[in-house]
Amino acid sequence: MKKIINDPDNFVDEMIEGLLKAHPEELRTVGDDLRELVRKDAPVKDKVAIATGGGSGHLPIFLGYVGKGMLDGVVIGDVFASPSAQQMYNVTKEIDSGKGVLYLYGNYGGDCMNFDMASEMAEMDDIKVETVLVTDDVASSPKGEEEKRRGVAGLVFAYKIAGAKAAAGAELEEVAAVTRKALSNIRTMGVALSPCTIPQVGKPTFEIADDEMEIGMGIHGEPGIHRGPLKSADEIAETILAAIFEDGPYTEGDEVAVLLNGLGATPQEELYIVYRKVAEILNDKGIKIYRNLIGEYATSMEMAGMSITLLKLDEELKDLLDAPADTPFFSQANIR
Amino acid sequence: MKKIINDPDNFVDEMIEGLLKAHPEELRTVGDDLRELVRKDAPVKDKVAIATGGGSGHLPIFLGYVGKGMLDGVVIGDVFASPSAQQMYNVTKEIDSGKGVLYLYGNYGGDCMNFDMASEMAEMDDIKVETVLVTDDVASSPKGEEEKRRGVAGLVFAYKIAGAKAAAGAELEEVAAVTRKALSNIRTMGVALSPCTIPQVGKPTFEIADDEMEIGMGIHGEPGIHRGPLKSADEIAETILAAIFEDGPYTEGDEVAVLLNGLGATPQEELYIVYRKVAEILNDKGIKIYRNLIGEYATSMEMAGMSITLLKLDEELKDLLDAPADTPFFSQANIR
Repeated sequence: MKKIINDPDNFVDEMIEGLLKAHPEELRTVGDDLRELVRKDAPVKDKVAIATGGGSGHLPIFLGYVGKGMLDGVVIGDVFASPSAQQMYNVTKEIDSGKGVLYLYGNYGGDCMNFDMASEMAEMDDIKVETVLVTDDVASSPKGEEEKRRGVAGLVFAYKIAGAKAAAGAELEEVAAVTRKALSNIRTMGVALSPCTIPQVGKPTFEIADDEMEIGMGIHGEPGIHRGPLKSADEIAETILAAIFEDGPYTEGDEVAVLLNGLGATPQEELYIVYRKVAEILNDKGIKIYRNLIGEYATSMEMAGMSITLLKLDEELKDLLDAPADTPFFSQANIR
Repeated sequence: MKKIINDPDNFVDEMIEGLLKAHPEELRTVGDDLRELVRKDAPVKDKVAIATGGGSGHLPIFLGYVGKGMLDGVVIGDVFASPSAQQMYNVTKEIDSGKGVLYLYGNYGGDCMNFDMASEMAEMDDIKVETVLVTDDVASSPKGEEEKRRGVAGLVFAYKIAGAKAAAGAELEEVAAVTRKALSNIRTMGVALSPCTIPQVGKPTFEIADDEMEIGMGIHGEPGIHRGPLKSADEIAETILAAIFEDGPYTEGDEVAVLLNGLGATPQEELYIVYRKVAEILNDKGIKIYRNLIGEYATSMEMAGMSITLLKLDEELKDLLDAPADTPFFSQANIR
């Protein structure tokens, strides 16, 4: 394991300590628990609050999207492990302005259980909570069983849309509704070339040969849909987009936003080589790229690989995508 | 070699093709040479133009900083190889508004030779050219021989300062002067944990054991000042900052900007763990961190490692650091 860290047991807390030293005007903890982070100015008056959370190891997911035009609070677990219901509840109380709280997170067992418990605790305090699960990973469950799918890079689009709607003063039900609409238009699939190592475990999360790749692997190393020889960038783009097209609502004349996300160790040069083919395929299909995001938005530490996410847009979603956002890890300038 | 690419011979051109598909409103080529890129709106009227260039494999360096408030043109070589003087001259002609062109690039033999030839060609066309070399890598040559040092992540601060001064309407000599002042206040040192692989070569640029690191290694794998056992994040931060303090003009009461730069495969979590210690050391020394940039700003493809850059600020440099900037890879929002 080759990492620039101190004691592996302190990986998450020291990362958060660094974060708080770097962005003291933007983020703060709830009480003295480093794992409960909120916007410095929370609760934001007359605004629906948005909370997310999950395991560490995916920066900028999750905590990187807390800030203006995006999220209000985040609950941080150990690497690839869910935070607790009590922590989620604490963040919920801290960010609620009276207008209610949207729980917006990826569909993983531990997170679902704990956020559900937290929402019950919050409701006993008369805090309104709505939950929207992100289930964008096409590879994680077949068509017809979309509700079983994992949430991956599509979280970024979901945060952006929900955050913009909340910032515009919408009610909780409206924020939830437009986020669900966006999610019905979002599909992601990825490819992994190498594993990552959980600091406290000290060995790679899986093994993969030097000449292999795995299409559809999850961001914690969950099995994908095909392991085979490493293909070319163009072939990988074709394979992934074919699966996304077969599954999702993308047809000629549509406008989409494309998120080309690096998983950690894959250089930006390679993302642009893939984007070249993605743009060509979408153009051939008569689908217009309205906006693109190319970079590391949802990672697995030092895993090599990338994912492609499409968000089909209508006028409302375009406006929300283009609304201001500013967090320590993300701003509107990332959306080109 | 495990990369998401097509034919290794097409690595650079396909990367640029992807870039032009992603950012067609912001960048264009000069003629049909993909390796000569300029701002879409070049030449910008009544503005000193700034050109840079060098080998590929360092995104966002170099081409990622072409845009508003930063650079006007870039000349792109093969991976880790200099572009030609003719290409530099072509870009120079394309971006000059009549107010002259600043050549601002890292101190590498091939780049120096070719930019010098290009400046001679430009001067025969009565285009004024000034050259400022970036030599921020403390590890690459001892104190007293600063002019022999390589340029690394400090390029980003140099681009920002020069770009802001040019955007404010300054004359060529003024842009060069303030950039030189900034550079006299900039020091960088890095650490490498793993090599990268040049696509056309197909094997790693150097070998390093699983339990080793090399302090001061250059971004092309040039030898550093010490290879030894992998130390903790805190020890690495202490070692690097001690070398920077011994060399540079940083004393109690100063204000600095800190750039904590990932070389490619090192996760952002680790950068924040290092930042935690950097902030502590600077605080103990009575040096105030005015701004920070934490992320991947000057990479070596999939190399693991990071570098620390300090820029000592005065009021003029603060204003220039805080001036607007917007490119496909960088915006003012990156500076927190």
